[in-house]
Amino acid sequence: MSELRHDPLNKRWVIIASERAERPQEFVVDGSTTNGLEDCPFCEGNEDATPPEIAVRRPPPGLPNGPGWRVRVVPNRYPALAIEGLPERRGVGLYDRMRGIGAHEVIIETPEHALEISRQPVAHVEEVVSVWKERVADLMRDRRFKYVLLFKNEGALAGASLAHPHSQIVATPVTPREIAVQLEASYTHFRAKERCLFTDLLDQEIAEGHRIVHESDEFVAFCPYASRFPFETVLAPRRQTHDFGRLDPKLVPGFSRALKDVLSRLRALLRDCPYNLVLHTAPNAHVEPHRSHWFETLPHDWHWYLAILPRLTRVAGFEWGTGFHINPTPPEEAARLLREVFS
Amino acid sequence: MSELRHDPLNKRWVIIASERAERPQEFVVDGSTTNGLEDCPFCEGNEDATPPEIAVRRPPPGLPNGPGWRVRVVPNRYPALAIEGLPERRGVGLYDRMRGIGAHEVIIETPEHALEISRQPVAHVEEVVSVWKERVADLMRDRRFKYVLLFKNEGALAGASLAHPHSQIVATPVTPREIAVQLEASYTHFRAKERCLFTDLLDQEIAEGHRIVHESDEFVAFCPYASRFPFETVLAPRRQTHDFGRLDPKLVPGFSRALKDVLSRLRALLRDCPYNLVLHTAPNAHVEPHRSHWFETLPHDWHWYLAILPRLTRVAGFEWGTGFHINPTPPEEAARLLREVFS
Repeated sequence: MSELRHDPLNKRWVIIASERAERPQEFVVDGSTTNGLEDCPFCEGNEDATPPEIAVRRPPPGLPNGPGWRVRVVPNRYPALAIEGLPERRGVGLYDRMRGIGAHEVIIETPEHALEISRQPVAHVEEVVSVWKERVADLMRDRRFKYVLLFKNEGALAGASLAHPHSQIVATPVTPREIAVQLEASYTHFRAKERCLFTDLLDQEIAEGHRIVHESDEFVAFCPYASRFPFETVLAPRRQTHDFGRLDPKLVPGFSRALKDVLSRLRALLRDCPYNLVLHTAPNAHVEPHRSHWFETLPHDWHWYLAILPRLTRVAGFEWGTGFHINPTPPEEAARLLREVFS
Repeated sequence: MSELRHDPLNKRWVIIASERAERPQEFVVDGSTTNGLEDCPFCEGNEDATPPEIAVRRPPPGLPNGPGWRVRVVPNRYPALAIEGLPERRGVGLYDRMRGIGAHEVIIETPEHALEISRQPVAHVEEVVSVWKERVADLMRDRRFKYVLLFKNEGALAGASLAHPHSQIVATPVTPREIAVQLEASYTHFRAKERCLFTDLLDQEIAEGHRIVHESDEFVAFCPYASRFPFETVLAPRRQTHDFGRLDPKLVPGFSRALKDVLSRLRALLRDCPYNLVLHTAPNAHVEPHRSHWFETLPHDWHWYLAILPRLTRVAGFEWGTGFHINPTPPEEAARLLREVFS
């Protein structure tokens, strides 16, 4: 079983996943390691190469764990965290540790090996989005989990080890540090203004206008004022709502169209660049309201969004040492190029 | 001129370095981009390919900016931050911005194109270390700078664009977020215990023993309990002292031997793997004691150290989304392999 360890100086949890341990000579240090079609466990017909499915979109008369599906969710074969057990928190001198419990699922987005989201029909993207929503909502019901992170690594340089389009969900028994930082900032702002900080930022982006990439009645995509990465884009609903797991089904088509549009623009402009998607949904407030005042204001001060992070620059010593990033492309310029690519 | 921008939700500064702007098609997304010997601006004889030197170790009768040097410091030709001017902080709605002032220097560690630190004689490493110390101390005198970060990117996958051994120093007009986190944790611990948090962690590592890689009377290297990366190693003086710029000259030989030893072990075990070095020295306390109570305890609650970060795993969506890392190699195992590699 893996282990969670806490570093009190950097206030950071780390997952020590010893079952995934590689021997020193097995570490991969090049950028070209995704698999081909011939040995793909995610392709239709290879369903027995994965653990049994947790959820699926398969029209009748298909059978469980057989072909004929459109979207399929399975446990990760090499999970970073294991689903059974209790955390068993304890101290180790000045450090903290707990058992590596959590969930680690894989959403296989399509039966086709090379059909990345931007190339899927919108109706199919809607199925992927509705499965994302369903899995986030389901994992949030487990009171051991404090955060449910949905993310996607597309391309080897974005961290994907398998090429077949898939996303992942990790549910963790601690609130991640990045989320804690946002919780605190959102709480402080709400206390002062009685408004949601992210919603205020979104309103400012809409008012300024020159960093907007996509706008509809329901969704807005923009390159944030303080983008860490070139062409970083945030996609958010116009209306403040904290929990992606409770996304109004009426918004699924609009979100899917916006996601496909933004990814199509990025991929057209940047030659199928690798990217990460990271969903910022609210932490699991009902499991620890007693632990922090941050949760008092939560349903009102959190605004979920999806971060789209193209991987064009390499993170080096400066970024690891300081936590701030050097971005060579002003977001105003990135947004203009993304707006103009299809015009 | 570049610009510093602050994101209030993530409490993060970003450098938007528009002079370094690349056109979308120019982004490099593969892992093999360091230069060869034929066009190296850092090799001896090519001194006119860099801006004029700031500091140098050159025995007589050599002339400034000519050959015959052993270590050479020059301004970065493409600086992330510019040395002239004042920050001119101002608000942009909810965001903050300031002009991108700071320093960005390159330390060319040797005239030889392929002589990485672990392969240099100890006497030469001592010269590199004494130049590091001298530059950190000099930049700390500039009251516009709140932090001086010394780091090294070795190998293309660690972010190096030039292969010739070199390190870099960036002085910034803001306290980086990672340093602010450490300041706050160190302050809180000192207030409770009247002891330095890092020194306490170091004592615990020494007492437990099984994560130690190198020990001498003066320095200790260990793989931290909550290592983010496989084979991550911290090298620190035994005695608490906060400012690397005031390193006792008597400690330079011991530090140089320890650094060479640890890097030699890493490179032997992991086949010349790429790595980052990041120096954690104290922030520039005298420039902002009025701004934060964190600085009240600073000379006593900060313990400088050098982080050695091999780049064997790829950072993906999970890490960007949460700030916590999945490390497949327990540090106990990493330290054992590093201890045994030369036995």
